[in-house]
Amino acid sequence: MGEVYWSCKPYAERVDHGQSDDTVDNNLEGQITEPELAVYTCEINLKFRLIEERQVIYNRDQLLERLLDAISCGADRYLEPIAADVQALEIPDLEASPQMRRQLILLRNSTDT
Amino acid sequence: MGEVYWSCKPYAERVDHGQSDDTVDNNLEGQITEPELAVYTCEINLKFRLIEERQVIYNRDQLLERLLDAISCGADRYLEPIAADVQALEIPDLEASPQMRRQLILLRNSTDT
Repeated sequence: MGEVYWSCKPYAERVDHGQSDDTVDNNLEGQITEPELAVYTCEINLKFRLIEERQVIYNRDQLLERLLDAISCGADRYLEPIAADVQALEIPDLEASPQMRRQLILLRNSTDT
Repeated sequence: MGEVYWSCKPYAERVDHGQSDDTVDNNLEGQITEPELAVYTCEINLKFRLIEERQVIYNRDQLLERLLDAISCGADRYLEPIAADVQALEIPDLEASPQMRRQLILLRNSTDT
């Protein structure tokens, strides 16, 4: 998608601001930024021009899937990127859903052994 | 991606408002909305939570591609959709780039024969 605006933040970077207690900071860093796996809130914003068939564009159920397929093929004579913005923000495990936390525990345990 | 906010507009629908000259409207419709192929400005906005490895998230060059790969697998224990918004707005051929217009002519001619 050409030039991509990119932004990633670990959780520790967010909570550092305004923290006066160093002990709390260190604890958070130890708990959250050390593991290789983490939960991220991701946002993708893409804008592009596309030559497409009418029946694809007006198919509400499949449009997103088709557009993502088109993007995965990259820029060509059918697709011209206009803007791309991707952000990933690490969240503390406890803010994730129970299902995700369970999966995270499972994955971390399986990589430890 | 679960519930997708979806919006599509043909060019004619945009220019109809405030038009007082019926002849112009008819001409535009005849030129722009009849062909099966058209150029669209598309916008995709996706927000989701993802379990991912740190080295993937902090790889600026590959993050977008990896996130799109993750989305194409659908929601599971690794990915939870938060919001999805997809919009497609038909633009008049003359607003497209020369490369796209050439491709459009080529495609329309090839489907006519």
